[in-house]
Amino acid sequence: MTAVQLCNALQCQWLANAQQTPAPKAHTIIMDSNKVVENIYLLVIVTLVSVLQNAFFAQKVERECKNHNTRTSAFERVSCANRNCMDAYPTFLAVMWCAGLCLSQAPAAFAGIIYLVVRQKYFVGYLGQTSQSTPGYLFGKRVITFLSLMCVIGIANYLLVRFYGSDYKEYVETITNAATALLLIP
Amino acid sequence: MTAVQLCNALQCQWLANAQQTPAPKAHTIIMDSNKVVENIYLLVIVTLVSVLQNAFFAQKVERECKNHNTRTSAFERVSCANRNCMDAYPTFLAVMWCAGLCLSQAPAAFAGIIYLVVRQKYFVGYLGQTSQSTPGYLFGKRVITFLSLMCVIGIANYLLVRFYGSDYKEYVETITNAATALLLIP
Amino acid sequence: MTAVQLCNALQCQWLANAQQTPAPKAHTIIMDSNKVVENIYLLVIVTLVSVLQNAFFAQKVERECKNHNTRTSAFERVSCANRNCMDAYPTFLAVMWCAGLCLSQAPAAFAGIIYLVVRQKYFVGYLGQTSQSTPGYLFGKRVITFLSLMCVIGIANYLLVRFYGSDYKEYVETITNAATALLLIP
Repeated sequence: MTAVQLCNALQCQWLANAQQTPAPKAHTIIMDSNKVVENIYLLVIVTLVSVLQNAFFAQKVERECKNHNTRTSAFERVSCANRNCMDAYPTFLAVMWCAGLCLSQAPAAFAGIIYLVVRQKYFVGYLGQTSQSTPGYLFGKRVITFLSLMCVIGIANYLLVRFYGSDYKEYVETITNAATALLLIP
Repeated sequence: MTAVQLCNALQCQWLANAQQTPAPKAHTIIMDSNKVVENIYLLVIVTLVSVLQNAFFAQKVERECKNHNTRTSAFERVSCANRNCMDAYPTFLAVMWCAGLCLSQAPAAFAGIIYLVVRQKYFVGYLGQTSQSTPGYLFGKRVITFLSLMCVIGIANYLLVRFYGSDYKEYVETITNAATALLLIP
Repeated sequence: MTAVQLCNALQCQWLANAQQTPAPKAHTIIMDSNKVVENIYLLVIVTLVSVLQNAFFAQKVERECKNHNTRTSAFERVSCANRNCMDAYPTFLAVMWCAGLCLSQAPAAFAGIIYLVVRQKYFVGYLGQTSQSTPGYLFGKRVITFLSLMCVIGIANYLLVRFYGSDYKEYVETITNAATALLLIP
């Protein structure tokens, strides 16, 4: 009898525990929303900085456009620089977000920041007058390549986990974090 | 006594079992998929509308391109308007999705709709012939600024929750919903 | 004896409860990360292929730009082809990802691959010299329409589930998979 009572007492306790273990609804949703933000907030910050940079470029074009209504050389130059930057922008965004979602966000965001610095240099260099400052159409090739490699590694890791059950994700993330430093070498 | 020991032993075993059992597979996936769609469906609708608008712009360029094979003034005008709109399109998409994911989707989608209306006006205004209808390179600055602010607030809220544990998300969402109405003022 | 039997009965009940309790934290996070990758990895692969194609296009422009510093006809042609492709790129990416997230990723990724093939043909055709190879501004209209329809169906399905509780998602996915084959018809 006492054992049954004890069991009943334990049952009540365990049932109470069981009912508590899944978090209540409203709380979960807030948590979920925060979990989503947790995984992307660095990427969002880089995206915001890139949007600010876009606005800066567009402002330059706007001013040049209003000052000289004729198609001067300066307008051609700033418009071309802006267009080249804008042509590469969706590619950059797509690769950065894929790399951040597939592998880990910190190296992806860091590479994104470096890309923005490279783009700023490219834009300023394009506006210069001297002959040595005539960059080509492409820029930031190394960063884009790095981000693409991150995507490939992330997907390869996922497929390895799925078919062989071995998870190298932690090692891969450590190596990626270290490799990001290589991007700083000019 | 022994029954209690048994119960304790079973408790340990059951707790161990409890930690291993994931929720049932098929049901979760359907739920998860719907939960993902639930958080983004307004953004997807706005994206679809923007794609329709892009198609409308491209159709205009296509027709002008086929009608006049020479580079007439009308072709220049419609092509330039289309290009300016397309230059700003990735920026808009990125900011809208970030704002929708970080804070809440309803105000972000509403601001997106307003941006599309502004863009339509800009495009039509660009095609006009009179001198008063020569808009600059930029448009929709206010909407983009608003969406950027939403991103910033969402990330600030996340960081506050993470480091201080205080959650202002509900208040922030209410204020954002109210602030969206301000965009309607011309 | 009776206590053990009771315990057994309780075990069954508790096991049923145990199936509701969520998995422990660290395990969930790895699972979650892999679950995210599981739902998007085909889309990421297509995105990577499209980035490679963009790099191929940009390389062509870069080479033409460096070879002939003057604005030759070949430069104009390759630059225009690249620009038309880049103008449509964000639209394509947005629609493909929306379709993949809202409905299912396999048909979306397959349609994306077909779009990339169409784009390659368009680019090569644009560079040709003969008069029959002067495509217009638009291309891949059918693929974009198909992807937009996928988004619409996905959202309609979500709204149906939400308001009526009936889930046609499986039938819809089967039909979509079959309809993808229609894209192959030239």
